[in-house]
Amino acid sequence: MVQQTLEVVKATELKEKPDPATLKFGRQFSDHMFMMDYSAVDGWHQPRVVPYQPLELDPSAMVFHYGQSVFEGLKAYRSADGNILLFRPEENFRRLNESCDRLCIPQVNEEAMLEYLKELVKLDKDWVPSEVGTSLYIRPFIISTEPTLDVSPARAYTLMIILSPVGSFYKGGIDPVGIFVEDEYTRSAPGGTGYAKTAGNYSGAYKAQERASTHGKAQVLWLDGVEKKYIEEVGSMNVFFKINGEIHTPALSGSILDGITRKSVIELLESNGMNVRQRQISMDELIAANEAGSLQEVFGTGTAAVISPVGRLEYKGQDYVINGSEMGETARWLHETLVGIQTGEQEDPFGWTIVLET
Amino acid sequence: MVQQTLEVVKATELKEKPDPATLKFGRQFSDHMFMMDYSAVDGWHQPRVVPYQPLELDPSAMVFHYGQSVFEGLKAYRSADGNILLFRPEENFRRLNESCDRLCIPQVNEEAMLEYLKELVKLDKDWVPSEVGTSLYIRPFIISTEPTLDVSPARAYTLMIILSPVGSFYKGGIDPVGIFVEDEYTRSAPGGTGYAKTAGNYSGAYKAQERASTHGKAQVLWLDGVEKKYIEEVGSMNVFFKINGEIHTPALSGSILDGITRKSVIELLESNGMNVRQRQISMDELIAANEAGSLQEVFGTGTAAVISPVGRLEYKGQDYVINGSEMGETARWLHETLVGIQTGEQEDPFGWTIVLET
Ligand SMILES: Cc1ncc(COP(=O)(O)O)c(C=O)c1O
Ligand SMILES: Cc1ncc(COP(=O)(O)O)c(C=O)c1O
Repeated sequence: MVQQTLEVVKATELKEKPDPATLKFGRQFSDHMFMMDYSAVDGWHQPRVVPYQPLELDPSAMVFHYGQSVFEGLKAYRSADGNILLFRPEENFRRLNESCDRLCIPQVNEEAMLEYLKELVKLDKDWVPSEVGTSLYIRPFIISTEPTLDVSPARAYTLMIILSPVGSFYKGGIDPVGIFVEDEYTRSAPGGTGYAKTAGNYSGAYKAQERASTHGKAQVLWLDGVEKKYIEEVGSMNVFFKINGEIHTPALSGSILDGITRKSVIELLESNGMNVRQRQISMDELIAANEAGSLQEVFGTGTAAVISPVGRLEYKGQDYVINGSEMGETARWLHETLVGIQTGEQEDPFGWTIVLET
Repeated sequence: MVQQTLEVVKATELKEKPDPATLKFGRQFSDHMFMMDYSAVDGWHQPRVVPYQPLELDPSAMVFHYGQSVFEGLKAYRSADGNILLFRPEENFRRLNESCDRLCIPQVNEEAMLEYLKELVKLDKDWVPSEVGTSLYIRPFIISTEPTLDVSPARAYTLMIILSPVGSFYKGGIDPVGIFVEDEYTRSAPGGTGYAKTAGNYSGAYKAQERASTHGKAQVLWLDGVEKKYIEEVGSMNVFFKINGEIHTPALSGSILDGITRKSVIELLESNGMNVRQRQISMDELIAANEAGSLQEVFGTGTAAVISPVGRLEYKGQDYVINGSEMGETARWLHETLVGIQTGEQEDPFGWTIVLET
């Protein structure tokens, strides 16, 4: 019988915690990590929490060659009364399984994964920082480990969860960003892997990100891969528009990520009596609305920044300023409300947060 | 000063060579491998040949999360007189650099890489099998190793070359394969990473490959990502058609790989007075040509199989038989000629082969 209950091997020496004031994203990791293996015979087995440590892999391990790997990203927040809160973690494991399906990776047990995650975070609870805006970033990921150059789904995988304390995204207050509308490079096309959180989608975007930077813009706004007319996402965020008092966002087309912040923003707005139109939105329509003065707000949504207002937009060589490059009232309200719920400062009428008993 | 000349650390114990009769692709590796590291300060440095061994990487190493990795594939052949021949290896390093460019990976020195490769193969020369149809598969690859979850190009990489003896692709003679024309899943779209040999392109194709298998077909025929009308590639091969005595192949559009076998086939045909038309080819045109009896041959080209004739084609639920499911004369001639040049059995008027002094 293979081991199916969680085994915990504690680190004998704990690391020094980083200074929360100078935390950089994803550079420091906590004392422990979660691991679980998959084999064709035993399925997913041997769930374990072990000291954070290097991986040993054969140079032929399939992940290096064919990129069969998926990941997730979520956060644990410290509430004012010292509790630790997780934000909709079950949604991340649901999406992990959707990514697995697209990449031909065997699915995981979502309920069990949530329990393992809780145990890991509880053990490393001192790594959840408490300063305003900080949190513990949680990265579950699966890699194909079988040592063969065969171009086909692997028969061996490892799932891991690593934890990294992260600083405030908005140190000097929220500053609207500039975005570059990319009309050459493609992130994803219909029938591709765009809706999955798989490794190749991200490195494939670097070239466009580089170009945006040379234009002095922080992020890429992606257009559809077919006509290069319709808006998809902004960098690693979903995107929303307030036009004439109404909120619009690109519909889930198969080529964009089904963001959990996106979903929460929609639910939050709708439960407050606002209507959100999920549809195809063209760049032409957006530029026309901006010229006509009816484009009131543009903002991205994602786990990292929660809400990220967009102040400028470069499209086909021209710069467009949005809302005088100020953060709009809807973006501000959404940010405050979501962060409030995530950190336990506001009531959570949706049952989105899970309080860890530590 | 960082080390820039090749260091060789020999294995103290050599492995047993596998039985050439039962070799499987990419499952056994030779005694040594090549490694070289990149850092922002030193660039590519410390080229070395070391015993084949596992890699140690931090769980946050970027390649696991964002798939920033590229690879190549070529072969060393044993000639009848015992020499070892490489087939156009400089083309592989040229293409590696093109892939690097698309993935924002720092380029390598192509001449130096060729010298390192030669040294590695010479050292493991006993791993080049001599049975008909066998060869030593060579896999150069680069992975991003920097331990951070930042979504941006890494500042640390490792380049490796590993060697794997491979058996004959055509054990029971060359049998034309069946292919499934995929009109839902997309391999690549214009502006994407299709022309690069990067990890994510391959695992992103597994789902379609699975579907082809359930239809009893060996490979996927990919259509363009925009209109799903035009032919791109077959599995991991470029594809050629003989229609009314003339040879046609999809033009390099940016979404297909610039295959070295493809290039060699074109040069071989043209130097023998045959014209090859590189252009857009639609499925409709192909089906019509087949119905009219003018579609004489379909074959794939790639390092693995050299020439792979296609005998059947499933498109929108219908099966089409090509050339009575027999290998055509052009495919046969190309296969014999290319394999002849690669193994030194035929003269090489093009200077494609490099003989290693062992
Ligand atoms: C491509 C992409 N789009 C959107 C998002 C936002 O998703 P979520 O709100 O679940 O963080 C992310 C990041 O997680 C992403 O990687
Ligand atoms: C996607 C793809 N197309 C075509 C080819 C054929 O290229 P080459 O002839 O250089 O092996 C390969 C394999 O190498 C490939 O991976």
